[in-house]
Amino acid sequence: MLNFDFHNPTRILFGKGRIADLAKAVPATARVLILYGGGSVRSNGVLAQVQAALQGRVVQEFGGIEPNPTYETLMQAVEQVRREKLDFLLAVGGGSVIDGTKFVAAAVNFEDDPWKIMEKRGGNVISALPFGSVLTLPATGSEMNNGGVITRKALKAKMPFSSKYVFPQFSVLDPTTTFTLPPRQVGNGVVDAFVHVMEQYLTYPANAPLQDRFAEGLLQTLIEEGPKALAEPLDYDVRANIMWCATLALNGLVGAGVPQDWATHMVGHELTALHGLDHAQTLAIILPSMLAVRKEAKRAKLLQYASRIWNISEGDDNQRIEAAIGKTRTFFEHMGVKTRLSDYGLNATHIDPLLAQLEAHRMVTLGEHRDVTVAISREVLEASL
Amino acid sequence: MLNFDFHNPTRILFGKGRIADLAKAVPATARVLILYGGGSVRSNGVLAQVQAALQGRVVQEFGGIEPNPTYETLMQAVEQVRREKLDFLLAVGGGSVIDGTKFVAAAVNFEDDPWKIMEKRGGNVISALPFGSVLTLPATGSEMNNGGVITRKALKAKMPFSSKYVFPQFSVLDPTTTFTLPPRQVGNGVVDAFVHVMEQYLTYPANAPLQDRFAEGLLQTLIEEGPKALAEPLDYDVRANIMWCATLALNGLVGAGVPQDWATHMVGHELTALHGLDHAQTLAIILPSMLAVRKEAKRAKLLQYASRIWNISEGDDNQRIEAAIGKTRTFFEHMGVKTRLSDYGLNATHIDPLLAQLEAHRMVTLGEHRDVTVAISREVLEASL
Repeated sequence: MLNFDFHNPTRILFGKGRIADLAKAVPATARVLILYGGGSVRSNGVLAQVQAALQGRVVQEFGGIEPNPTYETLMQAVEQVRREKLDFLLAVGGGSVIDGTKFVAAAVNFEDDPWKIMEKRGGNVISALPFGSVLTLPATGSEMNNGGVITRKALKAKMPFSSKYVFPQFSVLDPTTTFTLPPRQVGNGVVDAFVHVMEQYLTYPANAPLQDRFAEGLLQTLIEEGPKALAEPLDYDVRANIMWCATLALNGLVGAGVPQDWATHMVGHELTALHGLDHAQTLAIILPSMLAVRKEAKRAKLLQYASRIWNISEGDDNQRIEAAIGKTRTFFEHMGVKTRLSDYGLNATHIDPLLAQLEAHRMVTLGEHRDVTVAISREVLEASL
Repeated sequence: MLNFDFHNPTRILFGKGRIADLAKAVPATARVLILYGGGSVRSNGVLAQVQAALQGRVVQEFGGIEPNPTYETLMQAVEQVRREKLDFLLAVGGGSVIDGTKFVAAAVNFEDDPWKIMEKRGGNVISALPFGSVLTLPATGSEMNNGGVITRKALKAKMPFSSKYVFPQFSVLDPTTTFTLPPRQVGNGVVDAFVHVMEQYLTYPANAPLQDRFAEGLLQTLIEEGPKALAEPLDYDVRANIMWCATLALNGLVGAGVPQDWATHMVGHELTALHGLDHAQTLAIILPSMLAVRKEAKRAKLLQYASRIWNISEGDDNQRIEAAIGKTRTFFEHMGVKTRLSDYGLNATHIDPLLAQLEAHRMVTLGEHRDVTVAISREVLEASL
């Protein structure tokens, strides 16, 4: 096992009816900015529940945070917080709203150009406004971690940052808020959580059997519960199980003490930045090819994955690995997420510009062995056509 | 899944060489009391490493905290902290030292008779001194939770308490500190962690498949790694895996959103209080009988346990359940922990006094269904002879 630090101070308030507990979780004297996305939280009643729980406080709103939240939009929220002297942020939505709120929290009192936060990946953040979240879309895990991904439209750049100052103080996880999600978002969320686990699990053996089993438990649960969420959208326990899986898939736990990959995410980010694909769509495209191209370095873990997750025992090593990758692809498709560039109207002519962006963002030595060069990323993209 | 709160702010510093990081983890201006047990931390060099890391601070020591830490001893530490105006506690040892340190932290500024903390199970604690720990014995999970168990010799009472104020700020988990543990403590630790998981897992199905799989991952890892720690005491990864298992077995994670039992622990506490058995010895005696006596209410989970943990597929339901309980008993014995009252010189005449103590401590409706009456506890003890 590798040495590690683990620290996660976010309080989780999980279950039916927990939005009312915002009354206790948000300080009574707070001047609150509620941040949200496209308005679904208004139509499904979540925003009204939040407002009811916050009665007695100064509460303002900032709507319109996009999927893949943009610097341009978030800086308007930063201005509002500064102008109105607000002192507590509450993200109500999915990972994009929470990621965006983290950036706002870090930027409000940042003394230099806030874009420098992204240029330094958050390493220059020395404080942040306190904030919480009400999660309505299980997927990214942002509700219980200290990272975010921000897009700057003007630069076509989608980049990650993290800081110990941007853990949510609390996150409310009420599975009933996910009953009305469109199937596309349900599928995307399950794929996103699944790939988060794979980035931390499917590397090379580090003699960390507990982390392996926790990762496998997450994968198995997502495989079992994901399709049920599409088939029986009002099943509370199914929604609850997916929500808790998505949170634990990226809260630092399964990655503690083991190598991590993240090459699929970094290549995927460029697909979103240049072509606007949903984050999970990019992961569903890239992961199967990434595993296939790098199967020698990942052989031991791929065989473990084939056996423990997909119960594959027939065939030689290569056949079992290919079968496991095939099952992975089929699972993503079954969740309604297509796995080929061509499914999204992209072809071989789109590869060079994607590689140029990887180079521009210094994403040229990716993966657990830092050996995923631009040439390897090219192979992966070509295998994804 | 049941509604739950999860909040665990303890920072874990895991791995070889991490004791040196106390230099950063303990405030530079702290006036520190190091609390420890019987002196093994002196002979194995851990205390010297701790002192080296704390150079420049006012540092005092308090040794002699017993296994099953006593109120009588701990109140001497409380007096020392008050008299010397110390403001930071550092537990160096196993669960007993950490539990005791939690009590000291809560008692120092408690304005009433500190025994009332135990009488109210910690519910009346409104502040505590900050403290950290250096763990040297993986077993209780105290290093990453907010509970403790304290014994008052004069009353022959061993009782639990908890408070949100007594999470360690940090815990250093360096597996090399466990290389010199005697086999008895290694075996006890593995059994203790195993039973912690069972108390949160082996109840009734709550449609929480992820929690089940996490619990099963802990049990499987302890079953695999435990015997290796006895056979190859200097294997770093084995020690690391057991250490991380013991911490995660009782940090709130696997019990979040599911029913919990704890009847085995409560009956076991009386065995320690009256007869001085090691905590893990009491668990190894009580758990198999507890499962057997309550097998109807626990049937579904016992069958899952038989199948997933022990790969038992032969026989009818009752046979598979009996086989799983038998495997559990054999595992404890294989770890060097005997599983019968008679192994410790106890017989049927000792049962009535144990039951009287359960009644005196109001432990009369135990278990996940609150249906473990004194009569059931009698059955369990009789089955444990």
